[in-house]
Amino acid sequence: MRSYIYNLDPKKMPDAWYNILPDLPTPHAPVLHPVTHKPVVPEDLSPIFPMNLIEQEMSSERYISIPGEVMDRYLMFRPSPLRRAYRLEEALQTPAKIYYKNESVTPSGSHKINTSIPQAYFNKVEGVKSLSTETGAGQWGTALSIACAMFDMECKVYMVRVSFDQKPYRKGFMETFGATVIASPSDTTEVGRQIRAENPDTSGSLGMAISEAVEVAVKSGGSVKYALGSVLNHVCMHQTIIGEEALLQMEMADDYPDVVIGCCGGGSNFAGIAFPFVREKFNKNLDTKFIAAEPTACPTLTKGPYAYDFGDTGKLTPLIKQYTLGHNFVPPGIHAGGLRYHGVAATVAHLKKDNIIEAVALHQNPCFNASLMFAKAEGIIPAPESGHAVCTAINEALKAREAGESKTILFNLSGHGHFDITAYEAYMRGGLQDLELDDESLSKGLASIPDIQE
Amino acid sequence: MRSYIYNLDPKKMPDAWYNILPDLPTPHAPVLHPVTHKPVVPEDLSPIFPMNLIEQEMSSERYISIPGEVMDRYLMFRPSPLRRAYRLEEALQTPAKIYYKNESVTPSGSHKINTSIPQAYFNKVEGVKSLSTETGAGQWGTALSIACAMFDMECKVYMVRVSFDQKPYRKGFMETFGATVIASPSDTTEVGRQIRAENPDTSGSLGMAISEAVEVAVKSGGSVKYALGSVLNHVCMHQTIIGEEALLQMEMADDYPDVVIGCCGGGSNFAGIAFPFVREKFNKNLDTKFIAAEPTACPTLTKGPYAYDFGDTGKLTPLIKQYTLGHNFVPPGIHAGGLRYHGVAATVAHLKKDNIIEAVALHQNPCFNASLMFAKAEGIIPAPESGHAVCTAINEALKAREAGESKTILFNLSGHGHFDITAYEAYMRGGLQDLELDDESLSKGLASIPDIQE
Repeated sequence: MRSYIYNLDPKKMPDAWYNILPDLPTPHAPVLHPVTHKPVVPEDLSPIFPMNLIEQEMSSERYISIPGEVMDRYLMFRPSPLRRAYRLEEALQTPAKIYYKNESVTPSGSHKINTSIPQAYFNKVEGVKSLSTETGAGQWGTALSIACAMFDMECKVYMVRVSFDQKPYRKGFMETFGATVIASPSDTTEVGRQIRAENPDTSGSLGMAISEAVEVAVKSGGSVKYALGSVLNHVCMHQTIIGEEALLQMEMADDYPDVVIGCCGGGSNFAGIAFPFVREKFNKNLDTKFIAAEPTACPTLTKGPYAYDFGDTGKLTPLIKQYTLGHNFVPPGIHAGGLRYHGVAATVAHLKKDNIIEAVALHQNPCFNASLMFAKAEGIIPAPESGHAVCTAINEALKAREAGESKTILFNLSGHGHFDITAYEAYMRGGLQDLELDDESLSKGLASIPDIQE
Repeated sequence: MRSYIYNLDPKKMPDAWYNILPDLPTPHAPVLHPVTHKPVVPEDLSPIFPMNLIEQEMSSERYISIPGEVMDRYLMFRPSPLRRAYRLEEALQTPAKIYYKNESVTPSGSHKINTSIPQAYFNKVEGVKSLSTETGAGQWGTALSIACAMFDMECKVYMVRVSFDQKPYRKGFMETFGATVIASPSDTTEVGRQIRAENPDTSGSLGMAISEAVEVAVKSGGSVKYALGSVLNHVCMHQTIIGEEALLQMEMADDYPDVVIGCCGGGSNFAGIAFPFVREKFNKNLDTKFIAAEPTACPTLTKGPYAYDFGDTGKLTPLIKQYTLGHNFVPPGIHAGGLRYHGVAATVAHLKKDNIIEAVALHQNPCFNASLMFAKAEGIIPAPESGHAVCTAINEALKAREAGESKTILFNLSGHGHFDITAYEAYMRGGLQDLELDDESLSKGLASIPDIQE
């Protein structure tokens, strides 16, 4: 019998997150204050984040220990399975070996819970009782709702309007765990009212929703803090638990990836699977290839300039050196809502600039096509975001078939598509558009990138 | 660190299904031909089932080996995790220890795939290219759709109309795997047209949907066979993989259940978790308690007489000695669609009659209340059907608290509620009725039980 699943013994689970900052081969551009444009100091961030997470954000330690209370919750569902996609390989008639981390079996149905649990925990120990956040397709909002329920905290979620309408079950899912869910932009914040006044028909964006959630925290006088589901260094770091486990599981499989693939919106899922393998590449001088897969409708890494920009539409966040389409960029309403972000994590951008990682942009129809093929072979319906990783893995496997060479491919199946069935139905009816990025939106976005002199 | 999950090594996975028939302490009532009322012979069943499954149905072998092709698909997701519900125990402040088999992480999101895979396989090896079936809440239809995709077969699903309307995502899920889904009763069969003519506003029932699916098989001249998701002996037997794994996992946890709980509609999920422990009870003279949890809206085991009845509304199936509310009984439209069945597996009924197992009936509001509590503690939203097992486990744990005694409880979390979010929303809004069973429906149902002289 062949082994499909490599289950890591919980006793062998990695007990620390990996911080890539100290290992970057070239210096990392400093994060700047949104008004003074001077490098931020911890106090600048304290209105929205607790100090312990700010310390993690700026840490130069290579490893951060996972606290017992967090590990206790992780052990409810981690280590996640590493799966060999034998049946997909057969369907593709490829000599390539395809492995994937199955993050779809976590309680939230995606990788996002890997950071929501520590974020809730670190806020809790600093006395915070309530968290506000944004969510795109709902994966992050769901994960934070579950984590808040685990630590008896309140949770308010601003959900991008287009996803709020496309994925009605997500709202109920979050409410089941006690969260409050609001379609963004909303009338509950100043920034939301302003955006709606200027653009009443907007379908929303992650940038807008972030502004709303940050405003709630800033105006709370300390009782509410803000939690972000991607982009920041501490978020990417929490996700490295995926790659750390995968390293041990690839060892169990007596194999090692030639290519590591993740879809990329804000970058945390990509960072999570890739960074521990990037470390190994550095340490052992390996020639592992890394591919971040993004949508053509929001081609941050493939079409954006490398520049300082805000993380949100309302310019409330610090300025981060990144690839960006501009904080005013509003991507078309593709179903991969979690990838509709104008920017990307500074570390991911930095590695891209240094050509340590690559990026590809994909249309949504080939991603759904690949996801359907994956579903029929592997029995799991991928989230539309994860579909970008699936499609990229399949493309790599087909290249290996053409070249007639064996190759080991590892990708992160970041979540399931149980709440995206209407998107699949639309695809099967032939009703999906490939939603080309129009020049006007792109120009408008790019024009909003501030001119920062370093 | 405490261990939440007991992952069985796939190499130690049980390699046979357990057939309880030869171990029953009293003789099993024969299954009768629907017209002649004589004990059925294999040939009677051959228009709807392949001969290899008929042999399993009637087998007196204690164990049936799991074929390699089936084991290969099982190993894509099995063994399923056994989880200790520490956080639920803490929330309940009970000295009881609660364990559950987590069947919600299978590709279909429920235990149903444990039998859909072998059923598709055994049909395939007899040359069958297409299967027809019924589904209630959609768990079984989903499972058969995935299994048919795995073996390149066609799949037609008759879905009970009330569930078809309540759970629209289920249809898309099944279609993603290539199945055809039809709301039942429909105009595509003679029996469907007849039922609609008599009762145009019917919300449908499993009994009606079975009749439609059976008719399709019977009239196909052999090209289509019928697959049933519960009730039959071979179906219950395939599900024993759950209990067989749980036995080994309880050993890993160095514990043994005092109480084993499963929700009960047709009985296969209950049989799956319970029968291997019933065998141990027989063999080792243990005093393990077994509880089958059913809805008060469809109280087959707690209010039905033990009598011969048809499995379907159209009287196309053989007569089975069982607890039954009558094949014409139409239960209220509770959200636990999978438990809306008038009858129950003959083996489960037999064990109930002999007082080897017990049954309880529950209203849907306490089940949703228990499920919300479970979700907040354990991070998993149970299917409404599984909510009956959750509620029963919680009740047992609370009894243990009152009595101040430690007790080990094991239940089967048969599936997740990702497609039942509207039901949770309705519950949270206070909009659920406890849907009492009205005397008229019950009388009408009971009156349809045929008078069979043994």
